[in-house]
Amino acid sequence: MADTSSPPTDQLAAATITDEVPKEQFSDRVLIQSIIRRSDGGSGLAGQKARVGGWVKTGRKADKDAFAFLELNDGSCAGNLQVIVEASLAELGQIVQTGTCIVVDGHLKLPPAGTKQKIELRADKVLHVGPVDPAKYPLPKSRLTLEFLRDYVHLRSRTNTISAVARIRNALAYATHTFFYKHGFLYVHTPIVTTSDCEGAGEMFQVTTLLNEAEKLEKELIQNPPPTEADVEAARLVVQEKGAIVAQLKSAKASKQEISASVDELKKAKENFSKVEERSKLKPGIPQKDGKVDYTKDFFARQAFLTVSGQLQVESYACALSSVYTFGPTFRAENSHTSRHLAEFWMVEPEIAFADLTDDMKCAEAYVKFMCQWLLDNCLEDMEFMADKFDKGCIDRLKMVASTPFIQLSYTEAVEILEEAVKNGKKFENEVKWGIDLASEHERYLTEVKYQKPVIVYNYPKDIKAFYMRLNDDSKTVAAMDVLVPKVGELIGGSQREERYDVIVERIKEMGLPLEPYEWYLDLRRYGTVKHAGFGLGFERMILFATGIENIRDVIPFPRYPGRADL
Amino acid sequence: MADTSSPPTDQLAAATITDEVPKEQFSDRVLIQSIIRRSDGGSGLAGQKARVGGWVKTGRKADKDAFAFLELNDGSCAGNLQVIVEASLAELGQIVQTGTCIVVDGHLKLPPAGTKQKIELRADKVLHVGPVDPAKYPLPKSRLTLEFLRDYVHLRSRTNTISAVARIRNALAYATHTFFYKHGFLYVHTPIVTTSDCEGAGEMFQVTTLLNEAEKLEKELIQNPPPTEADVEAARLVVQEKGAIVAQLKSAKASKQEISASVDELKKAKENFSKVEERSKLKPGIPQKDGKVDYTKDFFARQAFLTVSGQLQVESYACALSSVYTFGPTFRAENSHTSRHLAEFWMVEPEIAFADLTDDMKCAEAYVKFMCQWLLDNCLEDMEFMADKFDKGCIDRLKMVASTPFIQLSYTEAVEILEEAVKNGKKFENEVKWGIDLASEHERYLTEVKYQKPVIVYNYPKDIKAFYMRLNDDSKTVAAMDVLVPKVGELIGGSQREERYDVIVERIKEMGLPLEPYEWYLDLRRYGTVKHAGFGLGFERMILFATGIENIRDVIPFPRYPGRADL
Repeated sequence: MADTSSPPTDQLAAATITDEVPKEQFSDRVLIQSIIRRSDGGSGLAGQKARVGGWVKTGRKADKDAFAFLELNDGSCAGNLQVIVEASLAELGQIVQTGTCIVVDGHLKLPPAGTKQKIELRADKVLHVGPVDPAKYPLPKSRLTLEFLRDYVHLRSRTNTISAVARIRNALAYATHTFFYKHGFLYVHTPIVTTSDCEGAGEMFQVTTLLNEAEKLEKELIQNPPPTEADVEAARLVVQEKGAIVAQLKSAKASKQEISASVDELKKAKENFSKVEERSKLKPGIPQKDGKVDYTKDFFARQAFLTVSGQLQVESYACALSSVYTFGPTFRAENSHTSRHLAEFWMVEPEIAFADLTDDMKCAEAYVKFMCQWLLDNCLEDMEFMADKFDKGCIDRLKMVASTPFIQLSYTEAVEILEEAVKNGKKFENEVKWGIDLASEHERYLTEVKYQKPVIVYNYPKDIKAFYMRLNDDSKTVAAMDVLVPKVGELIGGSQREERYDVIVERIKEMGLPLEPYEWYLDLRRYGTVKHAGFGLGFERMILFATGIENIRDVIPFPRYPGRADL
Repeated sequence: MADTSSPPTDQLAAATITDEVPKEQFSDRVLIQSIIRRSDGGSGLAGQKARVGGWVKTGRKADKDAFAFLELNDGSCAGNLQVIVEASLAELGQIVQTGTCIVVDGHLKLPPAGTKQKIELRADKVLHVGPVDPAKYPLPKSRLTLEFLRDYVHLRSRTNTISAVARIRNALAYATHTFFYKHGFLYVHTPIVTTSDCEGAGEMFQVTTLLNEAEKLEKELIQNPPPTEADVEAARLVVQEKGAIVAQLKSAKASKQEISASVDELKKAKENFSKVEERSKLKPGIPQKDGKVDYTKDFFARQAFLTVSGQLQVESYACALSSVYTFGPTFRAENSHTSRHLAEFWMVEPEIAFADLTDDMKCAEAYVKFMCQWLLDNCLEDMEFMADKFDKGCIDRLKMVASTPFIQLSYTEAVEILEEAVKNGKKFENEVKWGIDLASEHERYLTEVKYQKPVIVYNYPKDIKAFYMRLNDDSKTVAAMDVLVPKVGELIGGSQREERYDVIVERIKEMGLPLEPYEWYLDLRRYGTVKHAGFGLGFERMILFATGIENIRDVIPFPRYPGRADL
């Protein structure tokens, strides 16, 4: 693989910082990040000129209203730049309001000794003010709850918490692509609209144009009512009449011209009749056939859904390109109001050919470690904010996960450990015995209490797992694995896939599923079948794990859940 | 910004190649890429042992069936590794079949002088064979048309063309994330399910659970028919009776126990009655209210659609975090059967605060150049395949675009140039005059004939553009721009956004749109408004441009269009 870590030279040239103060490439503005996030806190830039823009976090007037002191933030980092504006340059009462947007040209100077910041900007000119009416602004300076902010998803990214989450989310997304790129995985866009109903239609959203079409037709039929039976009959009579005229002219041996004209009229009458007849059949409502919705009339000529996982489709690419992954939105129409569920969320799903469950666990561990280290290396300021405001252990947790080998534990061993714990007086709400699906409390006991580090549980009973997981030689368990981490429990679920044609057919039947929808999936086993394995990581869960934030609705920009889909 | 070009040290250590032959990290297999894509073509590895796996492109028996020669491909690169298998190791008749999967341990050796390849693998052991029945395999060795392959989206990634497209697509996606990451843009996941109906519901897919729910209810009512009016009446009579008994017992001063028992029975009868009454109201079909579909009963308690663009939503993040972008799937329910339209496609949409149209054009040019250079640096083998099979000019085109400054041309100038061309005898199907929306033939004339390089046309008449584009001082044009490139015409469309509250309100009204759905969007102008600009790039168009492939259905893994949504 070519070295992709540095961009081509001519591009670097275009991005080179040629002025004294670093600048963003596409405008004259300097990112506040590139001033205050230097190792010297910006002090080395004293004396230089800079244009900055941002939104006022807090502002106050000072020196008998001669100056305003503004804490300015542009979202490029958590920190603010202190900007000092003289009364002659702007209406100070306006610019000190929280939420005001301001762009200034100024010069950087060292602040008076004893202040926290290392550099500040003295404005020479105010280029733009986007004011705020404090009586109406929904996000005043006072601390707002995350729950309150969910009613303002279009403005909440202006708050410290949501902007820090946005930067952490961005870093984790880029870390994901970087990890897989560097390991030779190809990013595959699996479909969002799918006709593979793999996990039971009950939890799937349907994608349709039938409702819209029905509404359109209904409106049209009101404006322009369909022909009645009498109208159809009348049109039919016209055809008869015109036909009679043709016959009459022909038997009367009329001129070619006359006959041809009458034939034309007959043709027109016939066309009109079939149009009228066609329209008379139009019925308002969803098209039906045999008492059911007629999906052959839908956009894709069949029922279509939003995907619940790209796994099955991405397998088809793994069985050709070896190492692939998908990273995209997935959907569940569950009527779930918990702090851990969304109707729309993002999943990362790698799939590796020529790999077994051991390889799969290796990949999962390396990926999680890579993300943790990436945040420590690239997002420390935002992580410190999280440690301060939400979860004081979050940085230590990242360090621990990045550096500690994950425990590997068979399901059977895990159950034994839990049974041992019960014997020793530990109380669980859910009974522990071989065959159960581990509950969240069990998972958290293993990772938080027993081992205090990430735990991978593998080889689960086949009856609690999906048909596509590879049957082990014991015929009782399948080659599945879950990665459990402190704070969130299950972060990753994966498996080696059943590559043996006969075995997977048997499993599909055993589970009472129809074979027909899986014929394409069976083709992957019919033709050049290969051992392969993969897993799925819920991206929002990873952010909850990293930040310690409690509610999943606060770690995705535009949360969707029952009853809510703002914007 | 911290240097993110190299992963943290401990991660690199984990990925370090410690054996003599480079290996993929998560299994014992060596990628064929890391053998044959070395600068020496792999010859320096002669004598070393390696495990490889892949699918047989072509195979033949030789030396009186003593050996099989296999061209093995694992998708890691376009090239194949020649593998030689002795008859004692496998059933040669089986492994020479195109499509067969095979994993072998072997040693690398120099091929006889005069052969094309620089290295080949002599198998010592065959570890796995996934056979193919050539009579049934849908993708025989013969050259297949791209159209034919669309019926086998689950297998077509095994072909040279579709696998090369997959690698190019992957490279462009990673180049996209890298470009924006290095320029300080944050990746924002805008919603897929949206309630902002911004471009007219006619072209939008609806997302609903109503149809499923109605079907479920219908089934349930058949299995368990709703109570009739008589049933309801009977239940009501029971309540009356039980009530009478209570009254009777009370007036007869019966024992507390007796009265209490009769009250319990009355309570049960009342509960039963309200259940029966409730169920008697259940009607099959979609819930209706006032003759219309009752969307308050839908999952999101209102009508919801698949997004047509993340722009409006990503603007809310730009107006807080400065430089952001979204890269996700978008949808159009257009009944369009052309080679340039898909119902589901991917868009890249950056949005920059504190930026005007000039900055926007700078960013668009830099981004397109970066992608072109990236393909030249990282995907040359696949590009050479494309040049050989589809479009001999495609590599030169990438070089030209990567190195040539884009022409910038106002719309008015563009129209003058086109009018001049018409005067000189050039024939267009669509009339040229100020005010028209440039047709594809006009765009391609400008970029392919007149300038033979990328052209950015800016400042379009306001009447042909969207309400959110910033009105220029002439009150006739808006600050919009399109990037036109040879081969595909329009690759990018963008604009400076209208940041002035009064002006945008006026524009919304002027276009006959309702204000209410845009209140949140207006809030961005009400509170701390900022100059900002952005654009959208159709990701599949970029791949068409790069590869020279003609039909957009062949550059996305799982194409969706009217009547088709396979898998």
